[in-house]
Amino acid sequence: MGITLCVVGLGLIGGSLAIDLQRCAFASRVIGVDNNVTHQEEALKLGLVDEIMTLDEAVWLADLVVLAIPVNAIIQTLPKVLDLVSKDTVVTDVGSTKFPIVDVIKSHPKRSRYVPSHPMAGTEYSGPSAALKNLFQEKVSIICDKENSDEQAVDLVERMYRALYMDLLYMGAKEHDVHAAYVSHISHISSFVLANTVLEKEKSTKAIFDLASGGFQSTVRLAKSSPAMWTPIFLQNSANLLEVLDTYIEQMQEFRDLIADGDREELRKRMEEANRIRKVLG
Amino acid sequence: MGITLCVVGLGLIGGSLAIDLQRCAFASRVIGVDNNVTHQEEALKLGLVDEIMTLDEAVWLADLVVLAIPVNAIIQTLPKVLDLVSKDTVVTDVGSTKFPIVDVIKSHPKRSRYVPSHPMAGTEYSGPSAALKNLFQEKVSIICDKENSDEQAVDLVERMYRALYMDLLYMGAKEHDVHAAYVSHISHISSFVLANTVLEKEKSTKAIFDLASGGFQSTVRLAKSSPAMWTPIFLQNSANLLEVLDTYIEQMQEFRDLIADGDREELRKRMEEANRIRKVLG
Repeated sequence: MGITLCVVGLGLIGGSLAIDLQRCAFASRVIGVDNNVTHQEEALKLGLVDEIMTLDEAVWLADLVVLAIPVNAIIQTLPKVLDLVSKDTVVTDVGSTKFPIVDVIKSHPKRSRYVPSHPMAGTEYSGPSAALKNLFQEKVSIICDKENSDEQAVDLVERMYRALYMDLLYMGAKEHDVHAAYVSHISHISSFVLANTVLEKEKSTKAIFDLASGGFQSTVRLAKSSPAMWTPIFLQNSANLLEVLDTYIEQMQEFRDLIADGDREELRKRMEEANRIRKVLG
Repeated sequence: MGITLCVVGLGLIGGSLAIDLQRCAFASRVIGVDNNVTHQEEALKLGLVDEIMTLDEAVWLADLVVLAIPVNAIIQTLPKVLDLVSKDTVVTDVGSTKFPIVDVIKSHPKRSRYVPSHPMAGTEYSGPSAALKNLFQEKVSIICDKENSDEQAVDLVERMYRALYMDLLYMGAKEHDVHAAYVSHISHISSFVLANTVLEKEKSTKAIFDLASGGFQSTVRLAKSSPAMWTPIFLQNSANLLEVLDTYIEQMQEFRDLIADGDREELRKRMEEANRIRKVLG
């Protein structure tokens, strides 16, 4: 017998979770919550959820509440959800930052019913129509500060991710945010800035359209991502991001100077170093 | 009846050209030339070419010579090839820069037998084993300074690219190099520098391996590219690249400062501007 699942936020991540947790019978009933009426209707039409309710109603009925909204909205909504939940309900979120979220509910009397997590999967698209089957399969989900949650709560969240065929990793919320800045957030910034640069320099959008090769499309793909989702991530993780951005800008300036100086040997050495990413990516 | 094709450089691009031009019967005989004995043997074993010869022998027998070697090697080899060819032979190259190459043979008596071109396709891998079928299909190839080549020479090179199902575009060599800097070369630099930054900042290569999501893999993919190929491209196109790199660094610095200042509105605006790349990429 599956559980009653409440998904708050019926976009790319919430919608994809809802589809698969229903398909695999982990959830026997999926209740959707979304502020956006168009998204509510789309989610019902696409069959992402069984029904739409208000946050209060849905949280009351749910065994498991998943917050799949932008990280600034998680910070506003999570304390309210914890206020509402019964002692048997489990709450998790899928935000791309963890420390600022954990910090806001650290003294909440029901803190132990909450399990901070981050399934590392997604695409550059957003909204209910972006929801995909098998989005999470073979990807990694991170569970943070496990020791601060009830064992049974962690167990339910682990079972949810295993039902999606995800691999689990455990770490502290602070540590998560450092790694996320280095391995995920910086990629999005480099893509956004690359798109802005090309749109500024290349006066002919026809040339971009005609000449954009697979390489350009690959590096610029993330620039299509949702500003509503990424703005609060960058702001919440600014301390870690500024550190990695400063290194990036410094390295970029050095690379630029090597080209200006025509330093063939050092350029080649830098690129050979970059090639080491092959091994790290397996 | 197909032509006799000589491919100089049996790597990713030369090898992929050789496979498909043979498959589609555009070439009835494919002669390979490569300085690297291991690559010669691999190319024969993989069936990329029918036989291996020295440059002099191969050019003598060929109807069409394609230079698929790094752009610094093209500059050294192209004048020699033009010295050797008969009045009926056509020569083209597939280099990612065009003006420095065209410039080096501009006064050659057989200039008109040469057609500068750039098929915009590739992957991040290199060598004969990286050669792929259908690599060029539905991609764009650029032919430069058409008016400086014999009509019959242009016609043969056009037919070669059409046989690969490529779309053709025509422009001046200088114009090509500006667009290539903006739409292709800068992407490679941003990837190389991103890889270097992450390898420097993220002390735990295990964390990169575990946490690298699809987004990171996409933006960093080009950092696996061959330094031997890209070093001379960056140096030959340095004037255009420095201009676009300076804009990129400036934009990156501004984006960094917006995060430091917590300027939610302006960050969001910048990302919405970057989202315009959706339309341009179609």
